Amino acid sequence: MSAAPSVSYSITVRLEVPAGGAAVGQLTTAVEHAGGAVSALDVTASGHERLQIDVTCAARDTDHADELVEAMRAVPGVVIGKVSDRTFLMHLGGKIEMKPKLPIRNRDDLSMIYTPGVARVCLAIAKNPEDARRLTIKRNTVAVVTDGSAVLGLGNIGPEAAMPVMEGKAALFKRFGGIDAWPLCLDTQDSDEIVTVVKAIAPGFAGINLEDISAPRCFEIEARLREQLDIPVFHDDQHGTAIVVLAALYNALRVVEKDIAAIRVVLSGAGAAGTAILMLLLAAGVGHVVVADIDGVVSRTRPGITGQLQWVAEHTNPENLQCSLKESLAGADVFIGVSAPRVIDAEDVATMADRAIVFALANPEPEIDPAEAQRYAEVVATGRSDFPNQINNVLAFPGVFRGLLDARSTNITDVMLIAAARALASVVSPAELNATYITPSVFHADVHRRVAEAVRIAAGGPAELPVDTEVVA
Amino acid sequence: MSAAPSVSYSITVRLEVPAGGAAVGQLTTAVEHAGGAVSALDVTASGHERLQIDVTCAARDTDHADELVEAMRAVPGVVIGKVSDRTFLMHLGGKIEMKPKLPIRNRDDLSMIYTPGVARVCLAIAKNPEDARRLTIKRNTVAVVTDGSAVLGLGNIGPEAAMPVMEGKAALFKRFGGIDAWPLCLDTQDSDEIVTVVKAIAPGFAGINLEDISAPRCFEIEARLREQLDIPVFHDDQHGTAIVVLAALYNALRVVEKDIAAIRVVLSGAGAAGTAILMLLLAAGVGHVVVADIDGVVSRTRPGITGQLQWVAEHTNPENLQCSLKESLAGADVFIGVSAPRVIDAEDVATMADRAIVFALANPEPEIDPAEAQRYAEVVATGRSDFPNQINNVLAFPGVFRGLLDARSTNITDVMLIAAARALASVVSPAELNATYITPSVFHADVHRRVAEAVRIAAGGPAELPVDTEVVA
Repeated sequence: MSAAPSVSYSITVRLEVPAGGAAVGQLTTAVEHAGGAVSALDVTASGHERLQIDVTCAARDTDHADELVEAMRAVPGVVIGKVSDRTFLMHLGGKIEMKPKLPIRNRDDLSMIYTPGVARVCLAIAKNPEDARRLTIKRNTVAVVTDGSAVLGLGNIGPEAAMPVMEGKAALFKRFGGIDAWPLCLDTQDSDEIVTVVKAIAPGFAGINLEDISAPRCFEIEARLREQLDIPVFHDDQHGTAIVVLAALYNALRVVEKDIAAIRVVLSGAGAAGTAILMLLLAAGVGHVVVADIDGVVSRTRPGITGQLQWVAEHTNPENLQCSLKESLAGADVFIGVSAPRVIDAEDVATMADRAIVFALANPEPEIDPAEAQRYAEVVATGRSDFPNQINNVLAFPGVFRGLLDARSTNITDVMLIAAARALASVVSPAELNATYITPSVFHADVHRRVAEAVRIAAGGPAELPVDTEVVA
Repeated sequence: MSAAPSVSYSITVRLEVPAGGAAVGQLTTAVEHAGGAVSALDVTASGHERLQIDVTCAARDTDHADELVEAMRAVPGVVIGKVSDRTFLMHLGGKIEMKPKLPIRNRDDLSMIYTPGVARVCLAIAKNPEDARRLTIKRNTVAVVTDGSAVLGLGNIGPEAAMPVMEGKAALFKRFGGIDAWPLCLDTQDSDEIVTVVKAIAPGFAGINLEDISAPRCFEIEARLREQLDIPVFHDDQHGTAIVVLAALYNALRVVEKDIAAIRVVLSGAGAAGTAILMLLLAAGVGHVVVADIDGVVSRTRPGITGQLQWVAEHTNPENLQCSLKESLAGADVFIGVSAPRVIDAEDVATMADRAIVFALANPEPEIDPAEAQRYAEVVATGRSDFPNQINNVLAFPGVFRGLLDARSTNITDVMLIAAARALASVVSPAELNATYITPSVFHADVHRRVAEAVRIAAGGPAELPVDTEVVA
């Protein structure tokens, strides 16, 4: 599959053309012939002889953006000026900020929000620590914590380079969940130190969102933090992905009319996401799963099965298959890939059961070209935004945390994750549901509210929120 | 000195009175007779028979607030309803929030601030880590870090109870310095762990503001962090206080026409603030300082002088005085107290040199009643907002950090602290300067801008800020 032009590679080119000529029209044609898409054409200065124009256009990638500039330069009379990258422009100075909720206009304001008045509020919390959720930001605040070891598909790029993702995540927390999140990008990849740090910073937060921490360290870090903290700890790469996959699976199964208890699932990938998906599928009642990693199908008798893989081996592959990923697909109802590009092909999908489901989630390049998969599978989903049925974590984490915070939850359980998945699936109505619409848009008005409500109730929170409680934005 | 009514003990009382009677006028009189001050009287519902009124009034303290309610209840016909504490009302849900700077309206926005577009920004920073200051929030972000061990005058109340102070501090950072600060209240008081935690969270911040960490641990923690981090580390209780004291001293010396190199200073208190003040006075050219703590004057020959006190002993008390605090005042030009209530009296001040200066900064009760001190001293300052010449850290820290961030400073030095003090002192013009106006208001339009500029230049930053750089709000 060749990529389409994307706004994430959008550039704005300031250029000059002769006034009154054909150049303006030729610009658009030139960009389109070069495979780009013009999204805006603003005349920013006009004179008798020359026009200054800002042309904004989408490219496939940075090399293609350069090609588009050259295509415009080739139009007679055009003089190219400054070229700006829209994505970089949006990142200048960062994407989030801290704001006081109250004006500080005079000494009276100061004496209430700061000294001396604040002392009484401190003493009230010292006397009754639960008041921290009433009188501080704690109740609505989540820490977004990473060590930069497994950022997007980029790998171990470190804490500074991880910041743009964590800021973006914080922005999404507010936009979709009404939650105040702050990014903490840690300058350590030592598991003990990460546990120490997160435990230490916990008092000011009502939840911890771990992000982009590489396997297998993420399992241990999460397990220890869950045991030691009295606030929920969620690793989005694991649990967020698992929720959205389960939700998509619920809807895909409605489309192909199969029962979750009866299906055979092949899961490619035994990293952070794969393991979390496996655990949630089992908790949700999937009886038959086979997991494959880079060395083939995981089985109890495969040599070198240790650590997390041992747990996988003990809970999957009941027939003790010892074969390749491709071979394991024969007769399977569902393929879920969170692994690597192009590990299966259309012929493999052809060996699956009738009405097969394929979730090829490796990003940016899936386990199989979705167009290829569609030749033999009835429902196909990817992690990409330019294909139907996007499996996108943004569908889950804002609502999940909104629900956890509203319930004042001290932990997070499979029951809550499954409730989130069911709620997310339910946003697609029976009338809307079909093979190319199993997941709703993240901008769907109901998504985050419904997920939040389901998680809140599953976490033992109230059926109705009191009036003064934070609500979804 | 008896406290005046303060808005920080302000209550709003919802009550009902008979319509058309004298009760409304009697309410105000009743509050005033009881020593309170009515600041607002809002009729919130009116009928033929009854009026509902919200009376807001300032009390001296919580007991006094109760007395005011009883005084109003005693007015004939008055029925008292709900009593709200305005300070607590302002703290409900906390005082700060996180906001995205950009709207997230559609998939195009999402693809630029988050995946896939954000990946290119991450890679740019991975390639050139300095770009973190250009493409993330780092350049304008400060961590406000405490362990809750020495909060205000309240002592070791722990991290949750410290939150209202740290949130207030963050709000002041934005209001006066245009800085995005986030509070981190740590659930550890182990120095090694605090150093580990602050080092770990540093990548996303351009400065660390330590706050309310008890002595002597604060000295070691700060020293180790300064050595190990490439961003400035500032302990406001030490350096912020020292800057404002030095600024006030510069102006007081202008009033009494004395030279800083020639004065004799007695400093009461050898804790975090006292030690920092001492160091800055010495760096600023004060030649003669005597320090006293709870055991009397610190001297090289006093038994049990260890740790930080040893440094104090080696750099002060050139005559090797061995006496009490009170005795050491004889002939001194300046008394600076950061210690305990009522440790000196007017007779002690009478023994000081002519045109004496007294800074009695213990809070809320100073080392000497300022009215008493004024009998023999020419310039008197306190830490209180209800007396002239308030020594208030809010005068320093927002501008100091603004300057450090604008200079992209990697450290903080005495030269920068002294520059901040000089700039702060200079805000009081020669025409304005007198014995009761040596420090400007924190709301003075020039304070934070001038301090920022002085620190920025002292830190090697540009004389003029580039246009796109963050400026003081």
